[in-house]
Amino acid sequence: MFLPRIARHISTSHVSPKVLLPPNGLNPTLQSMDYAVRGALVQRADHLSRQLRDPSQTSSLPFSRIVYCNIGNPQSVGQPPLTFVRQIISAFAYPNLLSSSHLPPDVVSRVRTFLDASHGAGAYTESPGLPLLRERVASAITDRDRVASHPENIFLTSGASEAVKTLLSIIVRGPQDGVMIPIPQYPLYSATITALGGVQVQYFLDEDDNWSLSVDQLNQSIEAARANGVSVRALVVINPGNPTGQVLSRKNIEDVIRFCHQHNLVLLADEVYQSNVYVDHKPFISFKQAVSQLGLDVELASFHSVSKGIMGECGLRAGYVELHNIDRRASDLVYKVLSVGLCSNAIGQVAIDTMMNPPRPDEPSYDLYRSEFDGIFGSLKRKSILLCNAFNTFEGVTCNPSEGAMYLFPNIALPQKAIREALSRGMPSADVLYCLELLEETGICVVPGSGFGQREGTLHFRTTFLPPEDQIEQVAEQMRAFHHKFLNKFS
Amino acid sequence: MFLPRIARHISTSHVSPKVLLPPNGLNPTLQSMDYAVRGALVQRADHLSRQLRDPSQTSSLPFSRIVYCNIGNPQSVGQPPLTFVRQIISAFAYPNLLSSSHLPPDVVSRVRTFLDASHGAGAYTESPGLPLLRERVASAITDRDRVASHPENIFLTSGASEAVKTLLSIIVRGPQDGVMIPIPQYPLYSATITALGGVQVQYFLDEDDNWSLSVDQLNQSIEAARANGVSVRALVVINPGNPTGQVLSRKNIEDVIRFCHQHNLVLLADEVYQSNVYVDHKPFISFKQAVSQLGLDVELASFHSVSKGIMGECGLRAGYVELHNIDRRASDLVYKVLSVGLCSNAIGQVAIDTMMNPPRPDEPSYDLYRSEFDGIFGSLKRKSILLCNAFNTFEGVTCNPSEGAMYLFPNIALPQKAIREALSRGMPSADVLYCLELLEETGICVVPGSGFGQREGTLHFRTTFLPPEDQIEQVAEQMRAFHHKFLNKFS
Repeated sequence: MFLPRIARHISTSHVSPKVLLPPNGLNPTLQSMDYAVRGALVQRADHLSRQLRDPSQTSSLPFSRIVYCNIGNPQSVGQPPLTFVRQIISAFAYPNLLSSSHLPPDVVSRVRTFLDASHGAGAYTESPGLPLLRERVASAITDRDRVASHPENIFLTSGASEAVKTLLSIIVRGPQDGVMIPIPQYPLYSATITALGGVQVQYFLDEDDNWSLSVDQLNQSIEAARANGVSVRALVVINPGNPTGQVLSRKNIEDVIRFCHQHNLVLLADEVYQSNVYVDHKPFISFKQAVSQLGLDVELASFHSVSKGIMGECGLRAGYVELHNIDRRASDLVYKVLSVGLCSNAIGQVAIDTMMNPPRPDEPSYDLYRSEFDGIFGSLKRKSILLCNAFNTFEGVTCNPSEGAMYLFPNIALPQKAIREALSRGMPSADVLYCLELLEETGICVVPGSGFGQREGTLHFRTTFLPPEDQIEQVAEQMRAFHHKFLNKFS
Repeated sequence: MFLPRIARHISTSHVSPKVLLPPNGLNPTLQSMDYAVRGALVQRADHLSRQLRDPSQTSSLPFSRIVYCNIGNPQSVGQPPLTFVRQIISAFAYPNLLSSSHLPPDVVSRVRTFLDASHGAGAYTESPGLPLLRERVASAITDRDRVASHPENIFLTSGASEAVKTLLSIIVRGPQDGVMIPIPQYPLYSATITALGGVQVQYFLDEDDNWSLSVDQLNQSIEAARANGVSVRALVVINPGNPTGQVLSRKNIEDVIRFCHQHNLVLLADEVYQSNVYVDHKPFISFKQAVSQLGLDVELASFHSVSKGIMGECGLRAGYVELHNIDRRASDLVYKVLSVGLCSNAIGQVAIDTMMNPPRPDEPSYDLYRSEFDGIFGSLKRKSILLCNAFNTFEGVTCNPSEGAMYLFPNIALPQKAIREALSRGMPSADVLYCLELLEETGICVVPGSGFGQREGTLHFRTTFLPPEDQIEQVAEQMRAFHHKFLNKFS
């Protein structure tokens, strides 16, 4: 519609060579970086999704919509936001609502407190976040752990991802530096280490023991890396696990801490799923508390986020890192790196407060909050069990239960013919073929295990269990039908 | 108050050496990075500000508050947000408002459109932003330039800063790669190039000709860099200028484009102040339009932001980059890099739409929007003139007018004694001493010229002209009194 007004110009005959062309014209480390959670398979899903929405195409696809199980993005598949969170952030963004609307008095008074302590949603905050919010986060962590937390160690960031990237950027100094990561792992870690030009030092989780973490494995891994001349500087642990869903036992947590202490490693604890624990016998224990209780001076960074938990506010892009036992000069460097991005968004910062300091039982917002929270939590727990049980009835599939987080990571034994087919099509692993065919046949989008790392010779995929409860059984049945068809096709 | 419940543990006697200690234990390039806009002086200002707010300290400071002129953060110094913007984002965040409140019908229908085309404020969007919003941004750019803009070339980011960092990260491949930056410049560029381990190739703006940009300077600069073995790959231009406030003429813009074409440079055009142009004889001309009209295939990235302009919504952290003449494989790499951070915040993405597509004259929100917009714009223009005129009456100070942006960058001739004093105190430049004493005496926080780069032997500072109109005269008078006192002290 703008075409008639667009200037048209004839290009000069001289066409200069482009600067930004692969392979030599683009940063090689970024070219070699992989990020499966949003990789080629997901882009294919987006393409199919557009095809389904396009009225000009009479779709010949065998499904009517894409079911995105590739990413922990609860609200994209129908999980409602918590009313309290949205009341707080909308009134913070538009303070006129405080007088004109029907907001609960605790919402009104909390928002007034935030407005008084800030310049509102539209001003840059201090680089590590609004001082009042850092204080309130620290105070909530102190309550959680019964160990003092200090506001100057809290940095509010654009999701936990920004915090992770920032910490890794100060740790990895050059190509000799290694960071230990679990396998399987969340590919933010592998991608960032690759982008920084460092070395991924992999340690394997034990699938046969519900993805537990053994000190033997850690020792093997660090010894091998050091023998190769790698300077191992830090260890990443994800608890509850992503993509694996396990919750670490206290013993496992203490093992990791002692290992870091013994080997002088910075401990990076991804604890963004701390509210997503579905088993009673393994409560979430923070690494901060465990480090303190062991009395060890391990340098620790603990990450948390509003994207997960029960809020599931991925779109707000808000998270934080707490530093512990970290030298002031190192935390000053974190501050400086964050300051180049100025600050995280102020609305997201306020959302972090609603996560850390939910309504108290004596506050007007409590009852609704409680009922919404419990509803979502109960549903997540039921869905995780339902889907896991279903997988365990599929031929050649075994799946550890999801004790926490939002994912299942079933092990899939595929026929040799499928493995050869994937190889002949240049795929890195046969689970890519499996996931691609699943997408094309059912519209269900999951991520191949090879995107997270897995033991040689094993195949997996990661799926969320986030689709609504009234659809999850159908998802399981569609996957079952596909699975058997796939086995038949390649048997 | 939490202390009685806090566990106390006795540390073991073994204290391991810390990993994260300067100078060798932290990433050296990040340690060497400077970012003056939020540097040591600003941290001193924050310290003083806390001192002023602390009721337990009877403050002996000679001022009652800090006037933050160090950063273009309009709402932190009292600029109100535009009502239209806040109505849109609050209703997007809390859709209950659509039925219960008194929002104008155009706000309601626009928010409904956004909700229909997304999963709301709480879901990750596609990595480069919501498809509908990318389409609407492209359409608005097409209208602005009369040159076709395509949604697939638009990437919505966490402020323009994230977009700048992403583009530089794909351009700088290693220590041999250089990027041309103006001097003076906004330190995001120097800091990011340093962090990436590349080379800053400086070209000087001509202060005597109102900070214009000469091809001779560009040629000198690139020749010197190439003679030193630097592979010069890109050129940054900031229009309107930051910290310098000039608006480039069409001839200057075309000169830059031809220079990039001749030397095969990617052109990075920082155009975040495109709505902040206060002179009639030099309208803003986008590099996108000029590149198209010249018919040259220069690779271009143009940056824009909701933080500046008349909205001044810094806290929302939203911006975009438009790529033009850039190979699909390079833009795919931009996509991949952004995907590791998942996406920018959805509320900020919606705010970008309000900037690019403000209410039309036939819409109910128009009149209020127009009056708020014009009020802020007129005030900015008057304040820039008032403060600039004041500076030009100070002894030894000359200041180019601010044709655009939010800054003045006066040239200050300081006595030799002050220069020696700064040197003896280890300061990089005497303007640091000047700005520090200004802060300590008046509470006014500005940034030394050395933080932006300046010609050897010259001294400057950058100040915003953002404080409210009823205070700006007082600010000018305080600065005048300080200036003369400073000159006397060191004469």
